[in-house]
Amino acid sequence: MHRRKFLTAATITAATPLAAPAIAQARVEMNIVSSWPRDFPGFGTSAQRHAARISELSEGRIVTTYYAAGERVGAFDVFDEVANGKSQAYNSADYYWKGKHPAFAYFTSVPFGMTNLEWNAWVGVKGGQALWDEVAAPFGIKSIPCGATGSQMGGWFNKEINSADDLKGLKMRMPGLGGDVLSKLGASPVALPPGQIYENLVSGTIDATEWAGPYNDYFMKLYEAAKYYYYPGFHEPGGSLCLGLNKSWWEGLSAIDQQIILAACKEEHARTYEDVIANNGVYLDRMVRDHGVEVRGFSDDVYDKFYEGWQAVAEETRQHSELTRRVHDTYFTDLKELGGWTAIGEIGYSNQRNRLMGLGR
Amino acid sequence: MHRRKFLTAATITAATPLAAPAIAQARVEMNIVSSWPRDFPGFGTSAQRHAARISELSEGRIVTTYYAAGERVGAFDVFDEVANGKSQAYNSADYYWKGKHPAFAYFTSVPFGMTNLEWNAWVGVKGGQALWDEVAAPFGIKSIPCGATGSQMGGWFNKEINSADDLKGLKMRMPGLGGDVLSKLGASPVALPPGQIYENLVSGTIDATEWAGPYNDYFMKLYEAAKYYYYPGFHEPGGSLCLGLNKSWWEGLSAIDQQIILAACKEEHARTYEDVIANNGVYLDRMVRDHGVEVRGFSDDVYDKFYEGWQAVAEETRQHSELTRRVHDTYFTDLKELGGWTAIGEIGYSNQRNRLMGLGR
Repeated sequence: MHRRKFLTAATITAATPLAAPAIAQARVEMNIVSSWPRDFPGFGTSAQRHAARISELSEGRIVTTYYAAGERVGAFDVFDEVANGKSQAYNSADYYWKGKHPAFAYFTSVPFGMTNLEWNAWVGVKGGQALWDEVAAPFGIKSIPCGATGSQMGGWFNKEINSADDLKGLKMRMPGLGGDVLSKLGASPVALPPGQIYENLVSGTIDATEWAGPYNDYFMKLYEAAKYYYYPGFHEPGGSLCLGLNKSWWEGLSAIDQQIILAACKEEHARTYEDVIANNGVYLDRMVRDHGVEVRGFSDDVYDKFYEGWQAVAEETRQHSELTRRVHDTYFTDLKELGGWTAIGEIGYSNQRNRLMGLGR
Repeated sequence: MHRRKFLTAATITAATPLAAPAIAQARVEMNIVSSWPRDFPGFGTSAQRHAARISELSEGRIVTTYYAAGERVGAFDVFDEVANGKSQAYNSADYYWKGKHPAFAYFTSVPFGMTNLEWNAWVGVKGGQALWDEVAAPFGIKSIPCGATGSQMGGWFNKEINSADDLKGLKMRMPGLGGDVLSKLGASPVALPPGQIYENLVSGTIDATEWAGPYNDYFMKLYEAAKYYYYPGFHEPGGSLCLGLNKSWWEGLSAIDQQIILAACKEEHARTYEDVIANNGVYLDRMVRDHGVEVRGFSDDVYDKFYEGWQAVAEETRQHSELTRRVHDTYFTDLKELGGWTAIGEIGYSNQRNRLMGLGR
C-alpha cells in the first residue's frame, strides 16, 4: 500500500485564498452568445441550462445573460464577437472555425476519430486541452468542453446507399472534415447552420443531410423530408460542443470564478451526454413507428470507401501547418492507445452482452 | 423552430433565493469516511480530490474532513457510520451493502448490466436516481454517483480458462452478484476489501481475483501474483462509486450547499471515468511489457455459461422483494432501450473504426 503523507482536504482548503468569503468578490457580467436557436431541444436547452447554472453555483455573483443565435449576433458570428471582447463567451462547436484554422476540427470531432468517451479522456487527462489552448490562443480564445453529442447517425437520404457510387453527385449538408471526405467520393458537401437545414432539405436545395442523433434530429423534423436514416456516422463519432471564452477576460477572473465556470461546464458536458444516450433510442423508435423512417446500416464496403476518402483528407489537412500536423498526429497516436483499451473494455464487453441479449439491429 | 418564451438565465437567477450572498450561509462541517486506503491510486486519490473540491467550490464554507479506510472506521463500516449520523458522508460502492438489501447492487454494477455510459443516462435522466433513493431512504441514506470504474477486466488467474469447467473449485475474490454467478459455475466467491486482496492472492488463500481495470490493478501489483489477465469482465461492466450522505443531514443543508455537493460529485464522476479510459491502455501495455502478463479474451462459450449463471442468479435476486423485482425489471427494460441505441451508436461506430484501424486484440 502507498502510505505517503497526504494533506487532508480541510488542510488544503484552509491554506488557499479561495477560503475568502464570497461577499468580498466583485460581481461579474458574462454575456454568452450561442450558435443554437432559442429553446432548440438538445443544444439550445443545454446552453440555456448551463448559463443559468453558472449564476446558480456562483450564488448570483456571475450574472449571465444568454443570447441565442440571431438575438445578438448570427450563429456563425459568435467567434468574432467573443474574440473581439464584445461578449465574454460563446456556446458553439469549434469545428465551425476550421476556415480560421483547420486544427479546430479536432476539438469537436473528426472522421474516424474518438468517441466522446475517448475524447473526454484525451482532453481531460492526456494533454488534449493544452493543444486546444495552443490552437485557440492566437485568436484570443480559451475554449473548454461544454456539451457532447455522442456518436452520431450517418445521415438522412432519399435513396438507399448500397455502394459509395450512390453518394456521387449528392448535395449533402455536412460541415467539418467529414464534408471534405464526401467531396473525395464525388458528393458536394454544403455547410448550413442548424436553423436552415430543414427548409433546404424540404425544398430539394440539398439532397441529404446529417445533423446529430435521433433525439436531436427528431426535433428538426428531418423525417418529413427524407426516408432513409443511416448509421453509424463516420464523420462525427463524438461531437463536442464548447464554451469559448474571451481569453483576457478569462485570465482576469478570480480563481473561484474560474473554478465555478469550469465546474458548470464539466457538469453540462456530462449532462448532455446523458441526455442523448437516454433519448436517442426512444426517438429512433418513435420515428420508425410513427413516421415510417427506415433505418439502415452502412455496409463494410461503403465504410471502406469512407476510410479511403478520410485518409486522403487527413493527409491534406496535415499539410496546412506544423501545428495542424502535430495536433493530428498526437490525436491519432493517442486514439490508438485509448481505442486499444476501449476495444477490449466497453466495446469488448458490449459486443458480448449484445450478442447474448440480441441488442442492436 | 421553437420560439416559446423563455426566461433568460439572468432572470431565473435573480428570482431564486440562491442569489443571497454566501456570507449569510453558515459554515458546515462534513466528515467523509471512505472504503479506500489513504492515497490509493484511482479510488483513494479520487475520493481525496473530491473532498477537497467540495471545500474549494464552496469557498471554504463546507469544511470537509476526509478519513481513509481504517482511519476512523473500517472499509465496510462506513455505511453504518453515516446511517447513524456519526459522519455525514461515505465514499464507497453501494453494492457492498447487498446483504442489507440486494437492490443496492444495481447502483454500482450488475452482471450483464449497463456500461457507465448507459448507467449515467439511466440514473441521471431516466429515473434510476429515484429508485436508488427508494432503496436507500429506509436506511437513512441518500446516495449519488461519485466515481466510475469503466468496464472492468474479467480477472486474474494462474491458469488458462478455456472452458467454464476451468472455473470449478476456484476460490476467487468477486463481490456483488458477480460472485453469486461464479457459485453457479462451481467456483467459491470470496469478498475481500481492497487492502487485503494482494496478500491473499500471493499466499494462495485465494486462487484468482478481480479488482477493476489495468490502471487500478497495476497499483495492486496483482501481476506479481497471477499470470493470466482475462477480458472482458461480465460482472461489473460499469462500476459506479458513490457519495452516500446521511439523509436528514443532507435535507437540512441549504439549497446552495446541496448544489455545490452535487456539482462536485458530477465532476468527480466524470473525472474518474476520464482517468480510467486515459490510463487503462497505458498500464495494460506496461504489465505485458515489463511484467510478462498474458492477456486473454474469454471465449464465446465461457461467456454463454456466465450468462446462463447470471439468469439463474437474477431470478433468485428478484425473489427477494417487490422492490428488488421492480428495480431489476426497470433496470433491464431500460438497458434494452439504452443498449439498443449504443449498439448502433458508440458500439456500432467503434466496431467499424476498429476493424479499419486494426484496434483491439
